[in-house]
Amino acid sequence: MSILEKLTLPDIRELIEERDAVTLREVLNHWMPADLGDLLEDLTPEESLVVLEALNPELAAQAFEHVEAAEQHEILKILPESQLVRILNAMSPDDRTALFEREPREEIERLLTILTPSEQRVARSLLSYGEGTVGRLMTPDFIAIRAGWTVNQVLDYVRRYGKDSETLNVVYVTDDDDRLIDDIRIREILLAQPERKVSELMDSRYIALAVTDEEADAVGVFRKYDRTALPVIDSRQKLLGIVTIDDVLDVAEEEATREIQMFGGLEALDEPYIDTPLWEMVRKRAAWLVVLFLGELLTASAMGYFDAELHRAMVLALFIPLIISSGGNSGSQAATLIVRALGVGEVTLGDWWLVMRREIVSGLALGIVLGTIGFLRISIWSQFTNIYGDYPYLVALTVALSLVGIVMWGTLSGAMLPFILKRLGFDPAKSSAPFVATLVDVTGLVIYFSVALVILRGTLL
Amino acid sequence: MSILEKLTLPDIRELIEERDAVTLREVLNHWMPADLGDLLEDLTPEESLVVLEALNPELAAQAFEHVEAAEQHEILKILPESQLVRILNAMSPDDRTALFEREPREEIERLLTILTPSEQRVARSLLSYGEGTVGRLMTPDFIAIRAGWTVNQVLDYVRRYGKDSETLNVVYVTDDDDRLIDDIRIREILLAQPERKVSELMDSRYIALAVTDEEADAVGVFRKYDRTALPVIDSRQKLLGIVTIDDVLDVAEEEATREIQMFGGLEALDEPYIDTPLWEMVRKRAAWLVVLFLGELLTASAMGYFDAELHRAMVLALFIPLIISSGGNSGSQAATLIVRALGVGEVTLGDWWLVMRREIVSGLALGIVLGTIGFLRISIWSQFTNIYGDYPYLVALTVALSLVGIVMWGTLSGAMLPFILKRLGFDPAKSSAPFVATLVDVTGLVIYFSVALVILRGTLL
Repeated sequence: MSILEKLTLPDIRELIEERDAVTLREVLNHWMPADLGDLLEDLTPEESLVVLEALNPELAAQAFEHVEAAEQHEILKILPESQLVRILNAMSPDDRTALFEREPREEIERLLTILTPSEQRVARSLLSYGEGTVGRLMTPDFIAIRAGWTVNQVLDYVRRYGKDSETLNVVYVTDDDDRLIDDIRIREILLAQPERKVSELMDSRYIALAVTDEEADAVGVFRKYDRTALPVIDSRQKLLGIVTIDDVLDVAEEEATREIQMFGGLEALDEPYIDTPLWEMVRKRAAWLVVLFLGELLTASAMGYFDAELHRAMVLALFIPLIISSGGNSGSQAATLIVRALGVGEVTLGDWWLVMRREIVSGLALGIVLGTIGFLRISIWSQFTNIYGDYPYLVALTVALSLVGIVMWGTLSGAMLPFILKRLGFDPAKSSAPFVATLVDVTGLVIYFSVALVILRGTLL
Repeated sequence: MSILEKLTLPDIRELIEERDAVTLREVLNHWMPADLGDLLEDLTPEESLVVLEALNPELAAQAFEHVEAAEQHEILKILPESQLVRILNAMSPDDRTALFEREPREEIERLLTILTPSEQRVARSLLSYGEGTVGRLMTPDFIAIRAGWTVNQVLDYVRRYGKDSETLNVVYVTDDDDRLIDDIRIREILLAQPERKVSELMDSRYIALAVTDEEADAVGVFRKYDRTALPVIDSRQKLLGIVTIDDVLDVAEEEATREIQMFGGLEALDEPYIDTPLWEMVRKRAAWLVVLFLGELLTASAMGYFDAELHRAMVLALFIPLIISSGGNSGSQAATLIVRALGVGEVTLGDWWLVMRREIVSGLALGIVLGTIGFLRISIWSQFTNIYGDYPYLVALTVALSLVGIVMWGTLSGAMLPFILKRLGFDPAKSSAPFVATLVDVTGLVIYFSVALVILRGTLL
């Protein structure tokens, strides 16, 4: 690594300021695309123009592909047409689709007309697939070979036509109608004697994605079969394109973010936190918060129902936050475990009964632990204060038994809700921590006062 | 795909029952390793032995590599020595390390002695790297070439020695001391004229992992640079092995599970939910639950502190669950957003002030929304019941203003806690939903009663 490559952000800003195109060109054309992408994100859109201008077209397009969507949009807005032509035509078709699909309709049309006729045809066909499908992830740049060729012919063909292919790690065998009949890793080609026929290397076992498959499902296929690229076919088996693992890693990360946000009790943001407009974010958070609040209003009704008991035994009020939050916390734990286990496939719907038995035992054990601590705390404290009234041990027993019941109930609700949601066709991650907590709060109050009515009858109640 | 490949689990069980080795061999040797792995997981360990016996050694090892750790362990326990020799020696060194590191020390020694001397040397050297480091993920099976070779020489070399290499998608240029000087994607080799020199294809730009790097950090490098394999070097730049993306995908999934479990308020389980012994799981869940419970006990103290106010204005008790859970829910939302944004690098420590400003505005807006709903609910209800006492509008105002304050406070705590934890060197995911909720509960009560003291002074209080 030369000294020039170690230039820091301020150094580069200075070169931009001075319009020192020669040095910029010399330095930056040796950088990796991913690092250039980071650089462009750190610069203002205006500074980015200078950098993109300095890069050779291929590298400029690759660097631009590595920029986050929101920054891409900012740069796109001010990019002069000559640069646009250079970059858009050199971009990978799949990354270009991702760029286009975030722009408004009129803007897409404008950008499409900038493309060369052949690139425009490709771009339009990719945009014709539904959002969130494999079609939007794929690139039509792949190497298709024929079963009758020799290994040497394949190598010659790759040398001649492989330059634009998104990957050369895998080549695809198609028939006269462009239907996929096998995929062959380049490894097999490289290890084979040059005069062997492709047909001798074929095993006719391949994994393909359907162009209409969900992007999220593609992640699982890549993970299971350890592939770096997968072919995409239509319903007639015709090979339309390939999806490479780098794009799938990005999809996996977006999926995880969506799940985590849903589980945290809010509608998934479509953009990174920082790039989401403030009011859109407030709206998405308010939606769930209001639903939860309306559910939580039932706690006021439940409390109102036990108004008479509360008046007679005010001491019960002291432990309400403790009781309901213990139910909520144990419910969050259980829901977290089960949502994730369902998500990665460690647990399936059919395991509900096994999980239920485990969670009953876990909930009971956890409830006894917390109940014991609660009992000791109240009993011991009562030696030093009379805030707990004339029957501290009965109060302590009420709290302890309620904790056992509520922690069990919280654990069981948290564990079963994901199964119920999944069975009903919803995403199990919708059983978010706040959702479970709210559910448990209302029932927790009912459990608490019911236990109190039994234990304290004839004394406080 | 022939009919035989469509055999279902019961069909295969029947073949195993009947010890029909001929048919099993014929059918299963055409399956993909990943599908065989799934099959082995569905079978009992005893049935698995029959299947492994039927597979050719290479495929048996690959199928075994695709089995979940817990099931691998079960199979390993009953595998006869002849099979063990076959499978362990044929496994990829990296997958074998993963298998070994879950076994007890004496068992590792027994398994190591089963290996051939050369495989044993490899296995021991990989196990010598620290758990959780890149060294444990790597395999020493790669192709190293020299800068002076021609493309044709490289292709010949690959053809002769490439069979055992974990990947042929990338080859590595080393000097006479085995130090890494460049990586070259096989694509460059394939596209080059046969008589060109390797040195002409080199750009001396490469990304390498250090053998002591954390596994989790490797995930980010793969994602950023879109690689399918990365070289691993020691401090003297010597090329020790490579890490391939399939292993990194697994690490990424484990990391995500760990983060999610931590965020759900429990110590991360080391095994899948179903495979974790019940008591170990209870212990891991109890740890955090008890800590949270001890924190939550402070709510009882806070309530005790406002005992006199509660006696005078019993109506305040009715809204305690509503108030504190609204704080908890808004805190969970904010924490979820920020923990994830920090995790994927959308937000960095330096952004805390930007985030704080956004969250103050968001919290205020969300608080006003909930406060308004709360005010309307109490005011309207009070027309039909006198449970809210003689001053329903003042009570409604108390609840509404408390909600504004508590939702703001919850939002701000939830958003800032991850920054504080990260700044202190802890994992931001430790600011779990239950942790934030507990924090907000105690302070929420103080806010509520303080607002009440101001609004209700002279009437109820």
